[in-house]
Amino acid sequence: MKIFSLLYGVKQTGWSLRRCIATTPSSAFNFPKSGNELARSGGIASMMRLPIASSSKGLDACFVGVPLDNGTSNRPGTRFGPRQIRNESPIIRKFNAATHADPFESLMVADIGDVWVNPYNLPDSCQKIKEQFSEIIKDGCIPISAGGDHTITYPILQAIAKKYGPVGLVHVDAHSDFNDTMLGEKIAHGTPFHRCYEEGLLECSKVYQIGLRGSAYSVNDFQKQKELGFNLIPAEECWYKSMTPLMEKIRAVMGNTPVYLSFDIDGLDPAYAPGTGTPEIGGLTSIQGLEVVRGCKGLNLVGADLVEVSPTYDTTGTTALTGANLMFEMLCVLPGVKYHQ
Amino acid sequence: MKIFSLLYGVKQTGWSLRRCIATTPSSAFNFPKSGNELARSGGIASMMRLPIASSSKGLDACFVGVPLDNGTSNRPGTRFGPRQIRNESPIIRKFNAATHADPFESLMVADIGDVWVNPYNLPDSCQKIKEQFSEIIKDGCIPISAGGDHTITYPILQAIAKKYGPVGLVHVDAHSDFNDTMLGEKIAHGTPFHRCYEEGLLECSKVYQIGLRGSAYSVNDFQKQKELGFNLIPAEECWYKSMTPLMEKIRAVMGNTPVYLSFDIDGLDPAYAPGTGTPEIGGLTSIQGLEVVRGCKGLNLVGADLVEVSPTYDTTGTTALTGANLMFEMLCVLPGVKYHQ
Amino acid sequence: MKIFSLLYGVKQTGWSLRRCIATTPSSAFNFPKSGNELARSGGIASMMRLPIASSSKGLDACFVGVPLDNGTSNRPGTRFGPRQIRNESPIIRKFNAATHADPFESLMVADIGDVWVNPYNLPDSCQKIKEQFSEIIKDGCIPISAGGDHTITYPILQAIAKKYGPVGLVHVDAHSDFNDTMLGEKIAHGTPFHRCYEEGLLECSKVYQIGLRGSAYSVNDFQKQKELGFNLIPAEECWYKSMTPLMEKIRAVMGNTPVYLSFDIDGLDPAYAPGTGTPEIGGLTSIQGLEVVRGCKGLNLVGADLVEVSPTYDTTGTTALTGANLMFEMLCVLPGVKYHQ
Amino acid sequence: MKIFSLLYGVKQTGWSLRRCIATTPSSAFNFPKSGNELARSGGIASMMRLPIASSSKGLDACFVGVPLDNGTSNRPGTRFGPRQIRNESPIIRKFNAATHADPFESLMVADIGDVWVNPYNLPDSCQKIKEQFSEIIKDGCIPISAGGDHTITYPILQAIAKKYGPVGLVHVDAHSDFNDTMLGEKIAHGTPFHRCYEEGLLECSKVYQIGLRGSAYSVNDFQKQKELGFNLIPAEECWYKSMTPLMEKIRAVMGNTPVYLSFDIDGLDPAYAPGTGTPEIGGLTSIQGLEVVRGCKGLNLVGADLVEVSPTYDTTGTTALTGANLMFEMLCVLPGVKYHQ
Amino acid sequence: MKIFSLLYGVKQTGWSLRRCIATTPSSAFNFPKSGNELARSGGIASMMRLPIASSSKGLDACFVGVPLDNGTSNRPGTRFGPRQIRNESPIIRKFNAATHADPFESLMVADIGDVWVNPYNLPDSCQKIKEQFSEIIKDGCIPISAGGDHTITYPILQAIAKKYGPVGLVHVDAHSDFNDTMLGEKIAHGTPFHRCYEEGLLECSKVYQIGLRGSAYSVNDFQKQKELGFNLIPAEECWYKSMTPLMEKIRAVMGNTPVYLSFDIDGLDPAYAPGTGTPEIGGLTSIQGLEVVRGCKGLNLVGADLVEVSPTYDTTGTTALTGANLMFEMLCVLPGVKYHQ
Amino acid sequence: MKIFSLLYGVKQTGWSLRRCIATTPSSAFNFPKSGNELARSGGIASMMRLPIASSSKGLDACFVGVPLDNGTSNRPGTRFGPRQIRNESPIIRKFNAATHADPFESLMVADIGDVWVNPYNLPDSCQKIKEQFSEIIKDGCIPISAGGDHTITYPILQAIAKKYGPVGLVHVDAHSDFNDTMLGEKIAHGTPFHRCYEEGLLECSKVYQIGLRGSAYSVNDFQKQKELGFNLIPAEECWYKSMTPLMEKIRAVMGNTPVYLSFDIDGLDPAYAPGTGTPEIGGLTSIQGLEVVRGCKGLNLVGADLVEVSPTYDTTGTTALTGANLMFEMLCVLPGVKYHQ
Repeated sequence: MKIFSLLYGVKQTGWSLRRCIATTPSSAFNFPKSGNELARSGGIASMMRLPIASSSKGLDACFVGVPLDNGTSNRPGTRFGPRQIRNESPIIRKFNAATHADPFESLMVADIGDVWVNPYNLPDSCQKIKEQFSEIIKDGCIPISAGGDHTITYPILQAIAKKYGPVGLVHVDAHSDFNDTMLGEKIAHGTPFHRCYEEGLLECSKVYQIGLRGSAYSVNDFQKQKELGFNLIPAEECWYKSMTPLMEKIRAVMGNTPVYLSFDIDGLDPAYAPGTGTPEIGGLTSIQGLEVVRGCKGLNLVGADLVEVSPTYDTTGTTALTGANLMFEMLCVLPGVKYHQ
Repeated sequence: MKIFSLLYGVKQTGWSLRRCIATTPSSAFNFPKSGNELARSGGIASMMRLPIASSSKGLDACFVGVPLDNGTSNRPGTRFGPRQIRNESPIIRKFNAATHADPFESLMVADIGDVWVNPYNLPDSCQKIKEQFSEIIKDGCIPISAGGDHTITYPILQAIAKKYGPVGLVHVDAHSDFNDTMLGEKIAHGTPFHRCYEEGLLECSKVYQIGLRGSAYSVNDFQKQKELGFNLIPAEECWYKSMTPLMEKIRAVMGNTPVYLSFDIDGLDPAYAPGTGTPEIGGLTSIQGLEVVRGCKGLNLVGADLVEVSPTYDTTGTTALTGANLMFEMLCVLPGVKYHQ
Repeated sequence: MKIFSLLYGVKQTGWSLRRCIATTPSSAFNFPKSGNELARSGGIASMMRLPIASSSKGLDACFVGVPLDNGTSNRPGTRFGPRQIRNESPIIRKFNAATHADPFESLMVADIGDVWVNPYNLPDSCQKIKEQFSEIIKDGCIPISAGGDHTITYPILQAIAKKYGPVGLVHVDAHSDFNDTMLGEKIAHGTPFHRCYEEGLLECSKVYQIGLRGSAYSVNDFQKQKELGFNLIPAEECWYKSMTPLMEKIRAVMGNTPVYLSFDIDGLDPAYAPGTGTPEIGGLTSIQGLEVVRGCKGLNLVGADLVEVSPTYDTTGTTALTGANLMFEMLCVLPGVKYHQ
Repeated sequence: MKIFSLLYGVKQTGWSLRRCIATTPSSAFNFPKSGNELARSGGIASMMRLPIASSSKGLDACFVGVPLDNGTSNRPGTRFGPRQIRNESPIIRKFNAATHADPFESLMVADIGDVWVNPYNLPDSCQKIKEQFSEIIKDGCIPISAGGDHTITYPILQAIAKKYGPVGLVHVDAHSDFNDTMLGEKIAHGTPFHRCYEEGLLECSKVYQIGLRGSAYSVNDFQKQKELGFNLIPAEECWYKSMTPLMEKIRAVMGNTPVYLSFDIDGLDPAYAPGTGTPEIGGLTSIQGLEVVRGCKGLNLVGADLVEVSPTYDTTGTTALTGANLMFEMLCVLPGVKYHQ
Repeated sequence: MKIFSLLYGVKQTGWSLRRCIATTPSSAFNFPKSGNELARSGGIASMMRLPIASSSKGLDACFVGVPLDNGTSNRPGTRFGPRQIRNESPIIRKFNAATHADPFESLMVADIGDVWVNPYNLPDSCQKIKEQFSEIIKDGCIPISAGGDHTITYPILQAIAKKYGPVGLVHVDAHSDFNDTMLGEKIAHGTPFHRCYEEGLLECSKVYQIGLRGSAYSVNDFQKQKELGFNLIPAEECWYKSMTPLMEKIRAVMGNTPVYLSFDIDGLDPAYAPGTGTPEIGGLTSIQGLEVVRGCKGLNLVGADLVEVSPTYDTTGTTALTGANLMFEMLCVLPGVKYHQ
Repeated sequence: MKIFSLLYGVKQTGWSLRRCIATTPSSAFNFPKSGNELARSGGIASMMRLPIASSSKGLDACFVGVPLDNGTSNRPGTRFGPRQIRNESPIIRKFNAATHADPFESLMVADIGDVWVNPYNLPDSCQKIKEQFSEIIKDGCIPISAGGDHTITYPILQAIAKKYGPVGLVHVDAHSDFNDTMLGEKIAHGTPFHRCYEEGLLECSKVYQIGLRGSAYSVNDFQKQKELGFNLIPAEECWYKSMTPLMEKIRAVMGNTPVYLSFDIDGLDPAYAPGTGTPEIGGLTSIQGLEVVRGCKGLNLVGADLVEVSPTYDTTGTTALTGANLMFEMLCVLPGVKYHQ
């Protein structure tokens, strides 16, 4: 594996030795740039200002973007989600003060940039995403992906399931995304989990959809998922409650099954995440979002994504900031991450 | 009654038959356009892309706008509230997945556009609003109105009470809007309920004002309402609590009395509804707002409004979106709406 | 033909007679609502608050939207162009004070809503747009279309040329949109005129592309068009100059040839039209834009479009406002419009 | 007269003596705070951070706000115009580098705050504005007013003409504002000059309306003004031209007549001043605006206003900044201002 | 002491007597302008439109700004915090309806403007802030300061502790701000409490830091504070809970110790306060913020600040509005404020 | 030298060969990613999506950021200038269609990231910037820098002049930036050229300051520069004119002297570049800006910068886009760039 060290400008001599000494790798690991080494406004915006790698070779986990929004039904803009999440990420520090996870001392991590997508042809994009994720994960690297709209989870799970078999799913979302078609099309951001189900990519009884809400087309909208054994947790069941007990239950059910975590930012209430395309009121708080992700500690996670951040509707940057934090928390719950006391 | 079918472009042939078949009316009712029939970005923005009617004749309920903001004391902009609520409404689907209400299979509903207002003359506007609402409701159509500032509830209630007699009131708001005058004027957005009380339009003991908060001019600000028997529920009494128990109590008190529901979006906290003119911190969540409206199921509702959405301060669209959703929820609790199991 | 009169609320009686008398049709024509009849914030936002028609039957000209943005290569958002142009249009009055055109006393005009598009499938969208425009124009109605990204001009011209034969083209744009492919795809917003050329829809020597600028992929980018006889007018040739002499020349060349006018809002400088997806600095002023459209008076115009308004990047509304004004000016130069002294 | 020195914080001793010495008044005059005395972010935002006076007593000229927007026909928000113009004004320095005017060494100037307005009652507001301006000008102080919508010029001119007799008018605007009524009302932001004409406040042949453009209700819209002798200069006559020759001509015509300068910011093109309520494309540049104001040097100016800045549509602050600069330029051309070589 | 009465325009006669009579001082106290005396859009924006004083002489409490942002590590903009908080403050009325505090009938309060800062030199700014606050507080006036970034609390506490000795600290913040250095510098917005500790300005066991969260540089980030006896309350301990019990405990511990209240607006969740420079998700609600400030009633408060409001990221004004309200609530809990039943 | 190829995701095989073949380097040069190879939303945002280099070794020219804004006197935010300019740059293609420059086929170019700055200590930042630029230019690489505020030009010119001796200066700006001090400080964004002059870094008679305007502190503000021989071109001299003749004259004067080009984006009018900290109305158009930069062809350019882009005030992205384009145009006029016919 070849990891390029993303240097911010010229070689630093003399004065920089004193200040930047902490950046000298204390181990074989990559580290994000700290705001105490390099001003937060500085440096090319990779995720958390990590080194950029040309491939996933040698990496335990990677951040990767899927800059696509042509599956969106309402407001577009998620094509710029990966870029904006990276822009807001330099504020995040390497240690998780709440959970005491120390991911960068545990895993080799890099930002591997974005996969190639075809914005004018959604099926072709899906095909290419599948191929590229197959390559990313082939040696065991766990991808934490930034969308892009939710369409992308379909080809990602095609790649994942080919390697790991059908997976359990922790799915935070306002919407079930289990339509058969949208406007007659099979591929769109409201259909990925129907496609995944059809192709046998999911262990249906180990699918948890959390935060569902909003209006529907008919009383039958959720009928089929229920019959398949999907576990639907409407937002109403989450109101006023910690998500921690739910996550305990989910961990018990999942056991050692390979699990994929798909977090649609619209699972959160638009007060917390306004910058998204199909917002629904009455959603989760970002506290509940943190509880869900932190509650995945102990699962056999094989991949995760954070989708549907639409920067043009995120006028304060809070949505992208939330996305960046949730992706960091995802990293913290991957298998192999050490926790301090 | 004459309902104009709002077609989006030319007659669709061949290919469209397959896709649009669901729009063929399965009954005598009107339906909003689904995002699976017509892309959400498409079509002229009536409320939920319902047919537009030239009058309320033959309608059980209607959406109607009152595009006025000349009663506002702080930030203006609510004159564009109806238009922006309509713009954000195409995301709403016709069935209420949370409550299982099926309003469009139960009631004949249309968007009847906006009433005429005089932006340069507030008393004249009130006179004309009263006259037009008298016409709208004369055959029993229930109006769900989008403001506009809260001044509009005064002439609407004049029309309502003329037909139905004094009404009970469920009033969500940061402010009591019971000033006698503002800057010496009798008509402004802080005075409507004082005017209504003076004219005997309210059953005072059946007035519930929910979410009151913020600073006041003196210790006596709420004295008079209390003496009249108004039930004041400060926001502080709502903190950390479901509104469901309160609504049970309100339903018990209201009985069969005709009730009007007036929802000032500033009843919600500015985290949930920043796009409004006189925001006050420490308010209700949109979850609590949903509970209040859903808790009106069973009341003898004769009208409802959603006021004070000011799009120019709603930089992400969340406030207008919230308004649109609450108006849909209002429709769902009107008398006569069927609920599925 | 059936034109629905879009009434804004209930029947107006008494007081309204005095005020609204001017709206009584003085002829067989439709008129936009005046701000002196109905407050500008009022009414459902059709284009200029014209009546909405269910088809183009009986119309001399129509406004129509194509709410599509899946052909965009950079920033998306033009799917909401038609809606936002309509939102900003109520400020426009019916008479052209600069040119003395009186279009609504000359032609029967309505807003016919939006054509159906498939946001998940660009080739299918193009097919459907073509079919619908064929229907719109079959009886001679001239469509003035609001995009949508520039892809839409390809299927519109397919319909136009089928009826009228190859057309002359007045094309204002920063970009030639004559790529053969983009990212390997034949259909995208940078390829429409290559497609049109291939299909023989254009009279190549009567194509005028005005305002071209920005960087290119190579020195050969414009080679082919030149060989075909396209007339390329780079922005640099427009700097500091009135466009009136150019338009005189164009009129002389065009003669009676059927001409299509395609105005990409990014032909204007981003100072004048920031709300667009692929802005290029150094462009035309809106004054020059007006001169181009006004300079089309006398041409045998058979259709026109205004594309690439992206509301999410139009933070002040100026771009949509400019689009609405240019569409009004297009109407003013259609054949048959009367001019006062 | 009592001028309060607006100190920014506590008495400055020692260290401040060195830095602030330039602020020691070199004469009896007031001076704006310099960015080299006090950081531009500092201090309560009076106009140019001038001292605030309780009245115009002893002042040669004053800045004054009229925070009213209830005469607006389209977008509201100008009620916050005065506040936002003040917010952007600290960047302006006391000397005019272009014209060499030295106004603060020539005239006693202060910010006298805002006049009282009644936002719920437009005629009452006008009455009160007239009374207050009569008081402001009674001892010869020249008011430079920040609107507020254009309605305010009517009562201001009532006060002005009572003292000075009918005035000449230099009026920059996209609109003639000479409607008889709007929606049936006599008082609104499109009617002030009709009212002024009716009351004999204007020397009609010395009225210059510069920058007129946009659509109209009919061919007769400008007929009456022309008959009265108003000089109408459409924007089209200003395109590509310096305004300096026009201003020379105006100065020749005006002679010693008392002249009022009314500058509607929408006279400028929305590229230069997007933050306004009734924008029209194809307008003046800010360079032309500067030329008009600077061209008033030598006129017998008895008052001036800058109206229609609507901060909520001014997303970058440029419009308010432009307003602040134009108000400074107005001060520079008042009678009595000294010019350096 | 000299209090300047900030009059808004000219002397009001006749009509104004009736309306403005409430402003006639009923006592020796200053009062904020009511929205029922003066339209909220009116008047120069001092805090709550209080009179502006040239010094703290004779005042029991004062509002004061510190317009500095050069200590910020991520997004700048807090230099405009004081101005924007003042802009949003006119909506606040003088009486606290929730707690029944009547501060303006109890204390002599004014806005004393901003202290002088040096934006190009942070240590010099700190030196000058210290000197000016020493002057402000020397006769017992209690300052309620608007930042500016959190650096300012260091020099303020230098002044406070010099007069009152080491203080207890109620500190709401996402961050502990107890770094020794940032990028090698001793003075920055992440270091003030380390500096204060070093200089003995704090009673370490009476320091309460509430709302801490977010990522950290290492497991040891909070080690030193804990050893010193600081009481750290992570946000996680606040989730789903009222802060009232905590405040009871704090009051018991504090006793009569002089206490300083420092409220970093980023202590609140970005849903409630997006306009800040180093936002962290999962924070306090504004309800909890109100509980903390209201819970300070009974403490021997000697000063308070509200810092880190960054208007350029506060696209809706909610953050500044929240800041203004919290500063009003701070005033309400100062020693000596009377409470009605 | 080591140039890292910034790959966007995993190795592309099969399908990508066809599409990406144009990216196979046709020579030893680096190329920006084309929008026809990689969707514009894709890839980590280096300048024009060029490869990122760890140093300037082997480069003929480089793009480099200086993310500093602590020298700003009014609005901050330029610290994020480099990041936002990079974000908007993927729209630029590699060939200059207007001038036929082919820079990437002529020079070895990369983005070398940002230099290290100390946001809490301006003099220290300047020292470090100087050192780093000395390193960048030591082997002849020409830096094109993105600011940051204008302070940065001082240390850059220290490095430049140490290598090349005193330079000629083409300086586009609204302000002369020749103050001796600001608020008593020697280093700030209004003083760099005074410092440069003092240190003998400039050939004073070959300094051209273009676009100067706005108010001043006194009639003497420009006296000293004039005496030193600086050539001051006020904006007023540029109005309505092409800059091409001026540039011809400048080229004649400069001859072979090493020249530095410093372009403050506020040299442009805020209509064209609103996103800046000290905007002044009446400025250059972006057309004039292009003419100035293109007019530098033939000069012996040894460095260039584009400063004062403040993204938080650039609500539409136009300012950053303009900055990116001007930096590309700067590259095109460097010595050694080939021009096609």
